[in-house]
Amino acid sequence: MTQMNSLVMRDGGIHLETADIPVPASGQVLVKSLACGICGSDLHLTRHYKEIFAFYQKLGLMSSQQDEHTEVMLGHEYCAEIVSYGPDTQQSLPVGSKVTSIPFLVSQNNAGIGVTPGLSGAYSEYFIMDEVLLLPVPDHVPAEAAALTEPLAVGLHAVNRSEIQAEDVALVTGCGPIGLAVISALHRRGIKNIVASDMQADKLEKAKVFGAQHVVNPKDQDEMQLAASVAGERKVFIFECIGVPRIIKDFIERCPPKSTLVVTGIHTSESSVNYAYATVKELDLKFTYYYTPEEFAECLQAIADGHVEWQSLLTGKVGIDGVGKAFDLLAAGSDQTKIVIEPWRQGDLEILN
Amino acid sequence: MTQMNSLVMRDGGIHLETADIPVPASGQVLVKSLACGICGSDLHLTRHYKEIFAFYQKLGLMSSQQDEHTEVMLGHEYCAEIVSYGPDTQQSLPVGSKVTSIPFLVSQNNAGIGVTPGLSGAYSEYFIMDEVLLLPVPDHVPAEAAALTEPLAVGLHAVNRSEIQAEDVALVTGCGPIGLAVISALHRRGIKNIVASDMQADKLEKAKVFGAQHVVNPKDQDEMQLAASVAGERKVFIFECIGVPRIIKDFIERCPPKSTLVVTGIHTSESSVNYAYATVKELDLKFTYYYTPEEFAECLQAIADGHVEWQSLLTGKVGIDGVGKAFDLLAAGSDQTKIVIEPWRQGDLEILN
Repeated sequence: MTQMNSLVMRDGGIHLETADIPVPASGQVLVKSLACGICGSDLHLTRHYKEIFAFYQKLGLMSSQQDEHTEVMLGHEYCAEIVSYGPDTQQSLPVGSKVTSIPFLVSQNNAGIGVTPGLSGAYSEYFIMDEVLLLPVPDHVPAEAAALTEPLAVGLHAVNRSEIQAEDVALVTGCGPIGLAVISALHRRGIKNIVASDMQADKLEKAKVFGAQHVVNPKDQDEMQLAASVAGERKVFIFECIGVPRIIKDFIERCPPKSTLVVTGIHTSESSVNYAYATVKELDLKFTYYYTPEEFAECLQAIADGHVEWQSLLTGKVGIDGVGKAFDLLAAGSDQTKIVIEPWRQGDLEILN
Repeated sequence: MTQMNSLVMRDGGIHLETADIPVPASGQVLVKSLACGICGSDLHLTRHYKEIFAFYQKLGLMSSQQDEHTEVMLGHEYCAEIVSYGPDTQQSLPVGSKVTSIPFLVSQNNAGIGVTPGLSGAYSEYFIMDEVLLLPVPDHVPAEAAALTEPLAVGLHAVNRSEIQAEDVALVTGCGPIGLAVISALHRRGIKNIVASDMQADKLEKAKVFGAQHVVNPKDQDEMQLAASVAGERKVFIFECIGVPRIIKDFIERCPPKSTLVVTGIHTSESSVNYAYATVKELDLKFTYYYTPEEFAECLQAIADGHVEWQSLLTGKVGIDGVGKAFDLLAAGSDQTKIVIEPWRQGDLEILN
């Protein structure tokens, strides 16, 4: 067997194709993808790939030979099974072990699995991981739960970057996967006043499950005023988990004085801002991106220990041939939270809750 | 005597006029202005008063009756002499005492002396202070030195907001009064690696006097690269003390990863930014404005103790009738650092160093 089903993002579309099964190099492991989450950044890439590729080229992350038709094999939120080891490996985990890792290849210049063009991603049947980064997934943790480690780590990292203290007030805006991951991390850290904001009532219900004490729909009530009234003299930490253009400008103008605004959304287009509001209110803006290996491992442990209501995060499962339709659904703005792909099977989207 | 010489900003111009000497209300003190610095924000107001007044109205700092022709009696960096006390005062300092204070009237809803329309400012011969805020200026401290307390406090506050640690690297961009105040505060805090950046060689010489170990002219060398090479694995704190539009966008794109960007400049116009650079580099942006009364008092003490090279900061003195010409000179981009007005006398600008 040398061929596999593979999912490729090209020209903004998701294409099911056949590709060679990759061969692990020195220190690497071939794995079978058991489950892989669809990330908001994957969706963002299909819609804004030209802008994002241009940005990658400015940063030197893509070569000048690569153009707007470059393919990306998506998939960076995964749980997988060890198939075979490459050369120069310790092989301390048996073949067949369930594993996850941070989605990087230190063996290949820190390339991003599911992000860097030219690598296999976990939307496809097989891909490559670094042995040195493997984390074993305990038997009692389902693959689809372990695949949620990555977005949970994004949330934990945002909370750690914020330096929020127990007595402070958190306002989490947007209760998609990252917003819920932030709420989960705040709750685990013992933050007593978590205000969650979302335009959808069912997402606010999930926010309560994850530990929010106050919920607000900005269509009905000003979320900044609510957070300020909960805070009184205490500091407000606003976690931006919405990721739409103009939201940072809007938050800078509307947030309470002395707030810290933690930006988890990825804003790749030029936007406008009036910094005078940030000055007179003495705001802090903290931009967050990836997590540390320790934060990632902490989140896997939190799932294993039953400290994360991961069942509320997972709202759908889909086989490899149903992913295109799932993307269309998510792009249209559904009430789904996290859809997990099972690349080893066929099947349309199955709604779980 | 009921009339005084008064300097008024109206329609973007500086006008020497006659006004009533103000009368101190309950808890207030009438003072004679001995020395008052010309602040960059005063200059900024003459050039952008329409934009700034519009912003003040959005913030509720100006009434809707006030329009673009509103007058501001400038002057918030002062040393003064007690003339007479209003009702309900303790009068523990004798009339004739030399004093300074943070430029606010807590007795009048925290109005800003030299900023809020309708109050007297320290560019004029007489103005009003709150007794409760008075700080006595030691005899051996000249009035023009005490008038530098305010910009020094702006710099100290920016350094305190940054939370820079001894092992970190500071890059101070712009060596005008605020940049030098930042360098002074960093030096007093024991920061060992201070990189100062300015387009003018003489300002870089002053930066060395204030404690910078490295100086760089961005016309000759990339200041961000220099700071990054000094830092190695350590964190870089960039103090933006330039205040021109587009500089924040430029710094976000060019600064080293994991930097903290401390913005002391006041940017009142809409500007454009691509936050993706801030995200992939995980930047912190901290906006700073005023200082605490404790920081202000600490700076007066630092001057009194001889810990600030204030003579290098003070480059000119001018009488009340020479201020218009001094503004024209500063607006044209002179090599002056701080010009102090002596409102009690006549006289053109006298260059000190």
